[in-house]
Amino acid sequence: MHTRTNTVKIGQTLIGDGHFALIAGPCSIENKEILSETSKSVQNSGANLLRGGIFKLRTSPNSFQGLGSEAFEAVRLAKEETGLPFISEVTDPRQISDLMPLLDAFQVGSRNMHNYELLKELGKTDKPIILKRGFSGLIKEWILAAEYITSAGNDQVILCERGIRTFETATRNTFDINAIAYVKENCSFPIIADPSHGTGKTSLVKPISLAAIAAGADGLMIEVHPQPAQALSDGFQTLNFNEFQSLVHHVKQMLPLFSKTLEA
Amino acid sequence: MHTRTNTVKIGQTLIGDGHFALIAGPCSIENKEILSETSKSVQNSGANLLRGGIFKLRTSPNSFQGLGSEAFEAVRLAKEETGLPFISEVTDPRQISDLMPLLDAFQVGSRNMHNYELLKELGKTDKPIILKRGFSGLIKEWILAAEYITSAGNDQVILCERGIRTFETATRNTFDINAIAYVKENCSFPIIADPSHGTGKTSLVKPISLAAIAAGADGLMIEVHPQPAQALSDGFQTLNFNEFQSLVHHVKQMLPLFSKTLEA
Amino acid sequence: MHTRTNTVKIGQTLIGDGHFALIAGPCSIENKEILSETSKSVQNSGANLLRGGIFKLRTSPNSFQGLGSEAFEAVRLAKEETGLPFISEVTDPRQISDLMPLLDAFQVGSRNMHNYELLKELGKTDKPIILKRGFSGLIKEWILAAEYITSAGNDQVILCERGIRTFETATRNTFDINAIAYVKENCSFPIIADPSHGTGKTSLVKPISLAAIAAGADGLMIEVHPQPAQALSDGFQTLNFNEFQSLVHHVKQMLPLFSKTLEA
Amino acid sequence: MHTRTNTVKIGQTLIGDGHFALIAGPCSIENKEILSETSKSVQNSGANLLRGGIFKLRTSPNSFQGLGSEAFEAVRLAKEETGLPFISEVTDPRQISDLMPLLDAFQVGSRNMHNYELLKELGKTDKPIILKRGFSGLIKEWILAAEYITSAGNDQVILCERGIRTFETATRNTFDINAIAYVKENCSFPIIADPSHGTGKTSLVKPISLAAIAAGADGLMIEVHPQPAQALSDGFQTLNFNEFQSLVHHVKQMLPLFSKTLEA
Repeated sequence: MHTRTNTVKIGQTLIGDGHFALIAGPCSIENKEILSETSKSVQNSGANLLRGGIFKLRTSPNSFQGLGSEAFEAVRLAKEETGLPFISEVTDPRQISDLMPLLDAFQVGSRNMHNYELLKELGKTDKPIILKRGFSGLIKEWILAAEYITSAGNDQVILCERGIRTFETATRNTFDINAIAYVKENCSFPIIADPSHGTGKTSLVKPISLAAIAAGADGLMIEVHPQPAQALSDGFQTLNFNEFQSLVHHVKQMLPLFSKTLEA
Repeated sequence: MHTRTNTVKIGQTLIGDGHFALIAGPCSIENKEILSETSKSVQNSGANLLRGGIFKLRTSPNSFQGLGSEAFEAVRLAKEETGLPFISEVTDPRQISDLMPLLDAFQVGSRNMHNYELLKELGKTDKPIILKRGFSGLIKEWILAAEYITSAGNDQVILCERGIRTFETATRNTFDINAIAYVKENCSFPIIADPSHGTGKTSLVKPISLAAIAAGADGLMIEVHPQPAQALSDGFQTLNFNEFQSLVHHVKQMLPLFSKTLEA
Repeated sequence: MHTRTNTVKIGQTLIGDGHFALIAGPCSIENKEILSETSKSVQNSGANLLRGGIFKLRTSPNSFQGLGSEAFEAVRLAKEETGLPFISEVTDPRQISDLMPLLDAFQVGSRNMHNYELLKELGKTDKPIILKRGFSGLIKEWILAAEYITSAGNDQVILCERGIRTFETATRNTFDINAIAYVKENCSFPIIADPSHGTGKTSLVKPISLAAIAAGADGLMIEVHPQPAQALSDGFQTLNFNEFQSLVHHVKQMLPLFSKTLEA
Repeated sequence: MHTRTNTVKIGQTLIGDGHFALIAGPCSIENKEILSETSKSVQNSGANLLRGGIFKLRTSPNSFQGLGSEAFEAVRLAKEETGLPFISEVTDPRQISDLMPLLDAFQVGSRNMHNYELLKELGKTDKPIILKRGFSGLIKEWILAAEYITSAGNDQVILCERGIRTFETATRNTFDINAIAYVKENCSFPIIADPSHGTGKTSLVKPISLAAIAAGADGLMIEVHPQPAQALSDGFQTLNFNEFQSLVHHVKQMLPLFSKTLEA
């Protein structure tokens, strides 16, 4: 029902033009065991890409800032055990060389959509870039930010809508569903949805995931943890394993209506 | 997949708890012929409720303000020809007595969500009220506004999400898809979606309609006109007859997944 | 330093073109004694216009809604004792005839800026109208709303900036100081500031009042109560008598720099 | 009238606790001649600190990105000719070592308020940091961002309010005057105002500058260019030499009322 889009390849997983990306994993990598357990569980449920935070940008300098390079071994193990590609956020141009051999795609977080020095540097790599929308980025600014990457030579860009900052306080952010449909109509980058940040509430992740598919999304990025209430970050918007499995069940019912497939 | 909701009955059409409302018609009633032609066409395509503006609230005093009481005869004809219930906006407590014998439900527009004097007066009637969200109304304020109606004695309230005002300018409003899911989880009023105002762009009406269903909406309100480019108001967000028919086709594919039915 | 503006006359008090309006009084009229005491105190401190809420629009139907017509006698007494003009909010076209002999100017509250039926009706009266900006009204919409009044025949309009709804939560609203300067430059209506609602915090009322004068405001509207902590509404943003006196002291220091005078 | 604040020293210029900072210069450094001419003119008018953009963050990769290191010589000349300290924006941690011998203070731009890797690196230097508020940063997040700098060991932080992103489109940003008063009351960092970005309109720079002083600001940062209409960036919000001189005239009238002094 929607316009043709570019395809982007993360590891062996195709995204765009009918190929659906289901990215899952914990907000932060806390240790080897939790990442391994979570990765195997989400793979069994149907995820075809893994995620986990290594360097975290937190509002307060006193919040948990991620394990940094201590998380590398956990990532290697999760990739080995599942054979799935791994995505994580880069927050500083000086991290790129270390992360390059570890990751299959770089994520640029919402706080860095306007960090053009970082985008230019990523444009010089040959890895796919998942560019999250700034929480107050205009759609037009977001597409221009993507062009900082492509004009440096890297056309493997995927946009990710993750909610915008508005006056509403009942939800953590306002998921901008219009942005999904608008991007599908007006540019050729694949676009995925992050309903975990887009809502900030575990109970809303499923309905907004399905809504994003209906609006044309090429994939989902979902925060999953064995025990969300114990997670070191974002537990309130994280699914447990059963909730993720139930989400995938409904996603699989929806995809055929939109001529999309979820491939292992 | 969602919580049980109250049912509301507009004429003989049930809304809520699995019964889907498909409301369609022109933004403004321009004359008898256009309303009649539009009403018959949307009924053929599957609409089970009609709408059309009689009193219009426009930003400028120099814009078309609606036909007012001159539109009454056109409404009577459309109802007679189709047998469908008719919904229109009330903008002043002093209009209620005249509109009472004509309409099957009153709509309160976005600009009047905070007009509590009007809401109290509507609470004294026995007609269903479709309460649009103020374009900057908090969800919590919106539910409290509905309580102005129910606490005056009328519990036949349907909420309607129609987009909120944010910093984004690529679309006329930001359709708050989170609000649909949030309301389904937190209160028992049926909730419908107005993707015409929620996007302000004809081409986005279909994807956002389907997204609203996926998020749990109990109905849709869609602006339809035989020639949108000639409409006296809101043409840029209005569907023509073919576009509406195509929308209904996709709506009907989606509804069974969400255990909802569209009844004639 | 700023463009010439129209003058508006409320009772015998001139506003605009160098004549400064200092409007003060309680958010809601609670009883005769408090209104009388407050009115005399603010007059002694320098206020040249009185205010007090008769009909209150409150977010919840269970909050105090104002005394309604029971407050009329208290208003008459305060006017008699001070000789000052009295301003109060009108929330329904059906209140106009009762309020007409009582009030010297009508205030339209933020929730009613888009209530064009009310504005048209007020345009038929010969009383000055203080038109508050909707908390999400564009400046352009606000000026067009004023034209609903003037095009009905009443050119005695004063605009009142009272803060807009944004993502910021540290203050109740974001006082839009740009709007003061923009209106002075782009239209000839006098404009006053309501820093009580614009900040929602007693301690910020003074600095924002002075800022409004520096940006060009033609007046201030300040909530004052003998014991703010006991007020039935808005106590957290209300000044006590001493705080109001201190505010006036600083206002009087500022006005000569901006070629404005505060007349009794 | 306001709380005591820390003092910060940029070169020999004190800021805070009654010492007022008047920072002026072009948005971007375009060449040696324009920077020199502008620096001498703003010094004559009363500026006690200079500014000029070396590395520019622009929404589009096709816009002028600043001269980069080619501007260094122009900065050295301007400092030599005027004896004034120079401030410029740093956009990447890798620029710090090159800029260190050149600049007297680092500015962090609005797009980088959330770039915590940059803030941590600046916290390790001994230069003052002017931290602009993110255009959608909560005041609380802004103060926490400052703590990324202080907790790394550098307590020489000045906050700069430069307008926030809201629904209003009449002005480029909404200058948050409440933020000035709120910061003065709730933390001890000096705070300055950037009315050039805060309004986006040359004609509004003066009234908003004066308003910022009235609300408690410890300084102003103003864009000045000999021919704003020819400037390579931000001409529409830039003052020419006469306009700057007129602004300083009014600033000097205001400062004594607020117990502040502008020292050469």
